[in-house]
Amino acid sequence: MSALAERLIAALGPEAVHTDPEDLAVYSFDAYSEDRLPSAAVVPKDVREVTQVVRIAAECGEPIVARGSGTGLCGGAVPTQGGIVVSFARLNKILEIDTRNRRAKVQPGLINLDLSRATARDGLFYAPDPSSQKVSSLGGNIATNAGGPHCLSYGTTTNHVIGLEFVDHRGEVVTVHQDDPGYDLGSVLVGSEGTLGIVTSIDVRLMRLPEAVRVYVATFGDVESASEAVSQIIGAGIVPIALEIMDKVITGAVEAAFKAGYPEDAGAVLLIEIAGLADDMDASEAAIAKIARAGGALSWRTARSQAERDLLWAARKGAAGAIGRLAPNYYIQDCVVPRTKLPMVMHRVDEIARDHRLTVGNVFHAGDGNLHPLLLFDRSIPRDIQAVIDAGSQILETCIDYGGTISGEHGIGYEKRESMALLFSADDLATMGRVRDVLDPARLFNPDKIFPSSAMCNEVRATN
Amino acid sequence: MSALAERLIAALGPEAVHTDPEDLAVYSFDAYSEDRLPSAAVVPKDVREVTQVVRIAAECGEPIVARGSGTGLCGGAVPTQGGIVVSFARLNKILEIDTRNRRAKVQPGLINLDLSRATARDGLFYAPDPSSQKVSSLGGNIATNAGGPHCLSYGTTTNHVIGLEFVDHRGEVVTVHQDDPGYDLGSVLVGSEGTLGIVTSIDVRLMRLPEAVRVYVATFGDVESASEAVSQIIGAGIVPIALEIMDKVITGAVEAAFKAGYPEDAGAVLLIEIAGLADDMDASEAAIAKIARAGGALSWRTARSQAERDLLWAARKGAAGAIGRLAPNYYIQDCVVPRTKLPMVMHRVDEIARDHRLTVGNVFHAGDGNLHPLLLFDRSIPRDIQAVIDAGSQILETCIDYGGTISGEHGIGYEKRESMALLFSADDLATMGRVRDVLDPARLFNPDKIFPSSAMCNEVRATN
Repeated sequence: MSALAERLIAALGPEAVHTDPEDLAVYSFDAYSEDRLPSAAVVPKDVREVTQVVRIAAECGEPIVARGSGTGLCGGAVPTQGGIVVSFARLNKILEIDTRNRRAKVQPGLINLDLSRATARDGLFYAPDPSSQKVSSLGGNIATNAGGPHCLSYGTTTNHVIGLEFVDHRGEVVTVHQDDPGYDLGSVLVGSEGTLGIVTSIDVRLMRLPEAVRVYVATFGDVESASEAVSQIIGAGIVPIALEIMDKVITGAVEAAFKAGYPEDAGAVLLIEIAGLADDMDASEAAIAKIARAGGALSWRTARSQAERDLLWAARKGAAGAIGRLAPNYYIQDCVVPRTKLPMVMHRVDEIARDHRLTVGNVFHAGDGNLHPLLLFDRSIPRDIQAVIDAGSQILETCIDYGGTISGEHGIGYEKRESMALLFSADDLATMGRVRDVLDPARLFNPDKIFPSSAMCNEVRATN
Repeated sequence: MSALAERLIAALGPEAVHTDPEDLAVYSFDAYSEDRLPSAAVVPKDVREVTQVVRIAAECGEPIVARGSGTGLCGGAVPTQGGIVVSFARLNKILEIDTRNRRAKVQPGLINLDLSRATARDGLFYAPDPSSQKVSSLGGNIATNAGGPHCLSYGTTTNHVIGLEFVDHRGEVVTVHQDDPGYDLGSVLVGSEGTLGIVTSIDVRLMRLPEAVRVYVATFGDVESASEAVSQIIGAGIVPIALEIMDKVITGAVEAAFKAGYPEDAGAVLLIEIAGLADDMDASEAAIAKIARAGGALSWRTARSQAERDLLWAARKGAAGAIGRLAPNYYIQDCVVPRTKLPMVMHRVDEIARDHRLTVGNVFHAGDGNLHPLLLFDRSIPRDIQAVIDAGSQILETCIDYGGTISGEHGIGYEKRESMALLFSADDLATMGRVRDVLDPARLFNPDKIFPSSAMCNEVRATN
């Protein structure tokens, strides 16, 4: 047994430390795989054990990769340099629900949806709802600043985290709160993909469940006209709580899997949800329906029951899974453009896919301008792989050209880190690197993530 | 003429550079004075000139203090070490209003209220509304992460800034946007009180003006029962857009100045504003009125016209000015406690004032738990000055004891910097200091602000 394993076992006990390759394999990948096992995986039960793991890692010079549910798409939880993977499987409790102040304190391994389930009896919910919310953890959501269909109205994770406890590079426990004066370091941890510390407790804002909810499905001839309708709805001063588009490719797969009743013959489906006071619903519905009709909507359907609404949402959130029916492999791109640029960009995505002879499916948070083109391919065909890589890059570049950015909610991780150089200058990246050096001078927290390899080399030179 | 002045004049022209002591005096203070003049004050007309000023300052080793309208209370804009004060008097334009995406790009010298005035014709407004909004600048609002009565519903400045352009310590122009991946450095600049760079352009979110607004005035026997009613209203799931309390001392002064119709005989006045769709107003009003009555409200009045609502708000926002009628001097404390702790803390504030034989007036954002006790005194009486200092400290300590913090919206500046040690450990402060070193290694941006003098000494030792 290695000295590292011995020390970890002495600190956490043998049942909390994995070192067998078969056990370690499950900690080696998310949707992205690098075929590198960690030296050890640990499952601490409290913050004290996390501090011990960080101290042992620092003393042994081993990198630490924090891991929630492993549902990431970009290799954010992949141990590219080996080291220790810290799992939050046992730090998954709700510590406190403060109904009057509408706040909760939770552990990072808590599954996103479990918080809304636990607070529903008090009429409250946790707003950020990534499609993965049935399985993804709040710690992972914080790492990527996760969004979700309803972030159109409620904002992303960073708008709902009000305080954090984390273990820093020395193994010390630090707490930050957004009401505190001084620099807002909590906001830097949200979206930092595990590169600055290990979050051990999270204070979140809860929201009141709306009195009334309605869900509509409108169809359009193509994605461009559905996107234009989205822009018109928001431009008219109406903010539905969700505005989601699926194209024909996605709708077909979703219907085969869920039979939710989405029209399969339409070029694009627009899923609309509004919420608020019961008395407002008719007026909001009328205003949106009018804009949809004026924008060329071919059909309009109102979900008639909670069961129908739930099924429409389950199907929408299950879209990525359903796509498995269409091709052996798919690649989801995640990027953002200003909402008003969606029609042009969606047209260009279609052209790029055609240029590379790829089938593309589009399912996305239209209200946020957050695209998710899915490129279908077969990993066994080398031409396909290259075509997907090239098309994915061109889509990213298109988004940047239209004033957008290279990740909406999935993060940068390992996969997209070289693309950061498309968006940031070497100086900008060096500045972020120096911020990292403040909080993680030895760069043991999740190395090889977010920043281009070149930026890190430059950065090392700059500080020496 | 000094070499510094010569270089500044060569870069900006003589009309944009002040060096005469009489001219410099106006750049030497905000509500707090340190009796130290800057070496020069400059009024750049564009970002290029700001970059030149920063480069000249860096080469001459002169500190730089950015100054908006100088309405701060804590010495945030005071040039404690001399150096160059940069005024934004000419960088005060609205650069772009993007109605469809509900965004605006503005310069930092723009007066807060001017933005809402300019966007009102499009049915939009800028939400953070400090009581100083008729005179304070957006750049200053960003420095302190300003709040305001309506931040209860809309959030503080940091929730409305989506991107920044700033000049960094090298004199380079840097842009940051909240949609960008990587570390969220823009959030660190908001609330950093000018210590990290000079903001030259601001992208803000605009909000849609509500269809209907109602304003109510309820009276209570004392501040504690009014505070308890506030807690009950929010605990019941109702979020008015403002919940403001004034005690009898403040109401008397306000009525003498504004004659807005606040009842002067009540122990406490609760100003309530609700907004939304016209159809909802009756139901919300009934729910709030019921809670107020159950909580011991002595009277309830509905403002009947826009003019009446405007007058009530003008009087509330003018409270700090009206207090000048009661005593030669006053000191405003600014601190925060969890909303549910307000009744206990307000009781304790009253005790502290009595212990020190001081008159205290309370006017505050009750919904946010943001206290503003005003301690009345006479600067010519030494006992008074010491009593105010002691009482102010005890109020801060009380807020910390109840789980609160030492600034709600006015910032730390020069005045409260030593109190930061009550809230943060030496390690926490050293970490913030190292973040500062990343963005301002020479510490020329607004020295002596936010951080205790001791922390900065420790910090210098730690990095050497």
